[in-house]
Amino acid sequence: MSNGLIVSISGPSGVGKGTVIEKLREMFPDCRHSVSVTSRAPRGTEQDGVEYYFRTKEEFEDLIEKGEIIEYDQYVGNYYGTPLTPLLKMSRGGQDVLLDLTVPGSLALKEKFDDTVTIFLLPPSMEELRSRLSGRGTETEELVEKRMAQAKGEIEKAIHFDYVVTNREVQQAADEIAAIMKAENCRFRRSRDAVDTLLAQ
Amino acid sequence: MSNGLIVSISGPSGVGKGTVIEKLREMFPDCRHSVSVTSRAPRGTEQDGVEYYFRTKEEFEDLIEKGEIIEYDQYVGNYYGTPLTPLLKMSRGGQDVLLDLTVPGSLALKEKFDDTVTIFLLPPSMEELRSRLSGRGTETEELVEKRMAQAKGEIEKAIHFDYVVTNREVQQAADEIAAIMKAENCRFRRSRDAVDTLLAQ
Repeated sequence: MSNGLIVSISGPSGVGKGTVIEKLREMFPDCRHSVSVTSRAPRGTEQDGVEYYFRTKEEFEDLIEKGEIIEYDQYVGNYYGTPLTPLLKMSRGGQDVLLDLTVPGSLALKEKFDDTVTIFLLPPSMEELRSRLSGRGTETEELVEKRMAQAKGEIEKAIHFDYVVTNREVQQAADEIAAIMKAENCRFRRSRDAVDTLLAQ
Repeated sequence: MSNGLIVSISGPSGVGKGTVIEKLREMFPDCRHSVSVTSRAPRGTEQDGVEYYFRTKEEFEDLIEKGEIIEYDQYVGNYYGTPLTPLLKMSRGGQDVLLDLTVPGSLALKEKFDDTVTIFLLPPSMEELRSRLSGRGTETEELVEKRMAQAKGEIEKAIHFDYVVTNREVQQAADEIAAIMKAENCRFRRSRDAVDTLLAQ
């Protein structure tokens, strides 16, 4: 059995990444996502490995130390992060995994696991990005300017990604990402088994 | 404007390459193909650069010498070949080009022009390939055996191709190649312009 794809999608705030990924999850219901690891205590019926992997603060810091955390953040004193090993296990089990990571997160994952397919989602124009950021209505003019500057810095990192997809329209962007996933499954290194099987006949 | 794709499809005799390429030409009517160069004289209303590029035998041999011919064959004393420069011109003009080349032809083109997208078309099984070859009804048992041995040698070369696509059914194979073309157009190195344009805004 060949490995599943690990596909990581990043893009600047306001590019519409969440909506595109939601559309892709509808199109590929069998595609897995990553379960985050956290140092906060489980609540109610939350189960380890389902909602989150629950670890102590010390265990989490140990995971960071070992390079097991692709990216993490702290929120009200607790760590939240994306662990590497469960992704590799899902892929080795033949399951495709679709990830929503920050720009540095995608690059860190690619560095740890070169076979990751990294996709950068671009806005159709900077003007459109600004209008999407302002349109949320929740951001001050100052915050919009800050996000625009941040977006520019992130777009400069697109050079390190395998693919760039412009999000003109949700379905078009999702279709392009679906084509990338289909094509990546045809890459020789992932279809080697098909060739070996024929040659053994 | 970004360059057009140069996509080269190869596969063993009997794999159904002609039918798949015909289907792709229906799906992508704007996709160009290569015009062969020949040392035979033009017939009737044939025009240079339309049916063929017409060259003298000496000119053809000079083109071979210069590495301008990707692959060629001789037939009743005349040369027939695929010239390199017109492909590169079409690609630089933004046009996608779809080529039907032999296995060594695809590999030679990839060597000369690394940006070529090479696709190897596989049969679903060796048994199916044999049945397609016998089914033509025009080949002796001996010839079928010869083609099967040749096919095996060619399939061993699939390792040097970017993608492998199994031709279980014409539409499925054409759809996979269409996805590869769509994905290749999203590769960072081909979408660099989109990124540069945004950053200049």
